Amino acid sequence: MQKGTQMTDEQYMRRAIELAKRGMGYTSPNPMVGAVIVKDGRIIGEGWHERYGELHAERNALKHCKESPQGADMYVTLEPCCHHGKQPPCVEAVIEAGIKRVYVGSDDPNPLVAGGGIKILKEHGIEVVTQVLKDECDRLNDVFFYFIQTRRPYVAMKYAMTMDGKIATYSGLSKWITGEKAREHVQNLRHRYKAIMAGIGTVLADDPLLTCRIEGGVNPIRIICDTHLKLPLESQIVNTAKEVPTIVAVSERYHETAQSEALPDTEKDSIEENNNYQKNRKITRLEENGIEILYVAEKNGHIDLNDLMQKLGERSIDSILLEGGGILNWSALKSGIVNKVYAYIAPKLFGGADAKTPIEGMGTDSPAHAVMLGNSKVTKLGDDFLIESDVVNI
Amino acid sequence: MQKGTQMTDEQYMRRAIELAKRGMGYTSPNPMVGAVIVKDGRIIGEGWHERYGELHAERNALKHCKESPQGADMYVTLEPCCHHGKQPPCVEAVIEAGIKRVYVGSDDPNPLVAGGGIKILKEHGIEVVTQVLKDECDRLNDVFFYFIQTRRPYVAMKYAMTMDGKIATYSGLSKWITGEKAREHVQNLRHRYKAIMAGIGTVLADDPLLTCRIEGGVNPIRIICDTHLKLPLESQIVNTAKEVPTIVAVSERYHETAQSEALPDTEKDSIEENNNYQKNRKITRLEENGIEILYVAEKNGHIDLNDLMQKLGERSIDSILLEGGGILNWSALKSGIVNKVYAYIAPKLFGGADAKTPIEGMGTDSPAHAVMLGNSKVTKLGDDFLIESDVVNI
Repeated sequence: MQKGTQMTDEQYMRRAIELAKRGMGYTSPNPMVGAVIVKDGRIIGEGWHERYGELHAERNALKHCKESPQGADMYVTLEPCCHHGKQPPCVEAVIEAGIKRVYVGSDDPNPLVAGGGIKILKEHGIEVVTQVLKDECDRLNDVFFYFIQTRRPYVAMKYAMTMDGKIATYSGLSKWITGEKAREHVQNLRHRYKAIMAGIGTVLADDPLLTCRIEGGVNPIRIICDTHLKLPLESQIVNTAKEVPTIVAVSERYHETAQSEALPDTEKDSIEENNNYQKNRKITRLEENGIEILYVAEKNGHIDLNDLMQKLGERSIDSILLEGGGILNWSALKSGIVNKVYAYIAPKLFGGADAKTPIEGMGTDSPAHAVMLGNSKVTKLGDDFLIESDVVNI
Repeated sequence: MQKGTQMTDEQYMRRAIELAKRGMGYTSPNPMVGAVIVKDGRIIGEGWHERYGELHAERNALKHCKESPQGADMYVTLEPCCHHGKQPPCVEAVIEAGIKRVYVGSDDPNPLVAGGGIKILKEHGIEVVTQVLKDECDRLNDVFFYFIQTRRPYVAMKYAMTMDGKIATYSGLSKWITGEKAREHVQNLRHRYKAIMAGIGTVLADDPLLTCRIEGGVNPIRIICDTHLKLPLESQIVNTAKEVPTIVAVSERYHETAQSEALPDTEKDSIEENNNYQKNRKITRLEENGIEILYVAEKNGHIDLNDLMQKLGERSIDSILLEGGGILNWSALKSGIVNKVYAYIAPKLFGGADAKTPIEGMGTDSPAHAVMLGNSKVTKLGDDFLIESDVVNI
C-alpha cells in the first residue's frame, strides 16, 4: 500500500490496475478487476478479483478496509456489476458501504448491462467519474471484452524467431532460439491463456508437453488440430491427458465412424471400412486416455478453424495461445481468427533458404494485402526482443 | 550553444558528441570528432570536423571562440592528433591556445600514435582526463576504428522485413515493406556509408539506382557483385555511372581476357574464345560508361568476398552498406566480413513458404552455430522498428 504525498486520480487507478493483474490466469471467464478505496488522501482498502467464483474486486477492497469506508472514494478498473451471477451485484455493496464517489476505468462490455451499474450508483446519490485511464483498463481485459461480445476465443499467435525470421535451422533444429527470460515469458502466457493450440505437425516433430512450467501456474487446456487423427497413442500429450485437459479436434467425418455400430468381421475386405474401424478404435483409445474428441467441419481438407472457434467458445474457452507451425499459423491468419501476435526475436541469424519461418502456407500475393498489425509494443527480455501487436485487419 | 545552469563534464562531452555527428557522411576516411571549449562554466567555443581535408574539431572550436581560450577546458571526443596529415597536429594548436585541461573521449585507435597526443599535452603542463563517455565516443567512430586497424571496410548489412521475416511476397513483390520514416532512415545510411553493395540478382530483379535521395546527401560508391558480368548495359546503374562512382566486381578470370591481345577473326570457331571476346567487349563498354571493373579472386564459383574487401580497403573505401538479397547476405556472413546488422521490421505479415527471407543460402545447421549478434538497440520509426546489432562472432 502506498504512502506519502497525495496521489492523483490516475495514480490511484494505476494502482487498481496493478492489483487487477494479480488475478491474471485465475479469473477466466471473468475479467481481471482491481479496486482501491481512498479516504482523506490515504488508501484505506485494496482488493482484486482473485479467482473465478470468489469475491469481486469491489467487495474484496471493502472487506480489507482498515477503517470505515463511509464517505470514501472508490477507484475500480471496470464498471461495477449490477446483476446476480456467482456473486451478488457489487453496486449493492458499494451503496451499503456509504461510498461517496466512484471512479470507473472501463465500461461494462456486456451490451445487456453496460451503464446499468453506473446508473444505479447515481440513483443512490453516488457521484460517478467514468473512463479514468480507460485505454489501460480496457487493455487489461482484451480477452474478456472480445469473448463477451463474440462468444469466441481471443486468439494470440506466438512464435520465436531469429533476427532473419527463422524458427529453426534448415536441418529442423530449434533448441533454443531465444534465451531463458523470453522462454519464461512464454510460460507466463501459457498460464494466462485458457488454452494452448498446436497442429499435429508440431506434435509429430517435437512430441511436446504444452504445459505451463511456472510454480503455481495453471496448465492451459491443450487443443491439437489433427484433422485425420494422426496423434500417436504413445505421445506425451496422450500420456498426460488424464492430468491436463486435452481436446483433439478432428474432421467431423470420423464422427459418423464413431457413431457407426457396424463392426467389421474378418471376412470384410473393404479397406475403407477397415480404416473406419481403425479410426474408431483410436478414438476409443484416446477417450480412454482422457482426451476429448471434438468433431469439426472440414474446409479444403483441413479443420475449419472458424467452426472450431465456435465450438471452443461454447465450451467457455475464452482465450487461446496459438503455438503453431508455419502452416497452421497461416491458416489461422487467413481464417481471420487471430487477434494478437507475440513475436519473440532473438539477436542471432540462421540463414538458410530451406529454414522454416513462422508463417508459411501460401502467403499473401501483394504487400497491399498483408495482414496488418497495430498497437505494437516492444519489450527487451534478456538479449531478446518481444514485439506484441494487435491484428488490425485481415 | 547551451546556456543556463552549469553542466557536468559528461554533459559537455555529450555536447561534443552531438557536434561530431554533424560531420556524418563528410569526414571519411577521417573520424567524426567534436570539441567544446569551456571557461568559467560557460561554453565559449564549439567545433567539429566538418569535412575531410578541412580543419579538425579542436582547431574549429578554437577558431570559433568568442573570447580568449587562455586557461579554458577543452572537451574533445577523440585524442588530439600529434602527427602531420592533411592538417598540422592539433596538439600544437591546443598548447598554443593556452588550454589548461583537456577531457578526452576515445583513445586514438591508430596503434602507431595512440597515447602520443596525450603525452605531448602532459609534457606541456596540460592536465588530461581520459575516457570521458568513452563507449559513446567509440561508438561514434565504429567505422574509422575498424578501418584504421584492419584496412578493410566496415560492412553493415541492411534489410527490411515483415514481422514474420519476409522481404517480399511469394510473388516477389516488396514495395513497400516499411513506411516512410524507415525508408528515410535508410537514405541516411546511404549518405553515411562510403559505399553501397548489392548483388547482380538484385540489379536484375529491381533495376535499382542505389543512390542517396536526401537533400545535400552524398551518393555512396556503388559496388555490384557480378561474378560473370551479367550487368545489363541498359540498366540504371550503367546509365548513371558517369555521375555516381560505380565499381563492378567480376571474376579475375575475365582479367586475363581483358589483357589478352588476341582478337578473334571471323574464322575462329572456338566458342570459348568468342565468349571471351564478348566479355572483353562488355568490359570495354562498361568502362566507357564510367564503371570501374574490379577483378576479384573466385571462390566456389562466386567472388571471394574477402579478396574483394581487401581490394576495396586499398581504394580507401572504409565502410559499406550491404543491401544484398538472401544469397549474397549469407555469403557475406559466412565470409566473416559483416560487422553490423540493421534489421527494419514492419508490423505486418506476408506468410508464404515460398516468400523470400533476408538471409538464405545454405544457412547454419544448428542453433549453436548461429551468427550471434550483440549490443542490440531498438528504435521506433513510425510504425516500424529498427533493430541494430553488432556481429559478435561468426
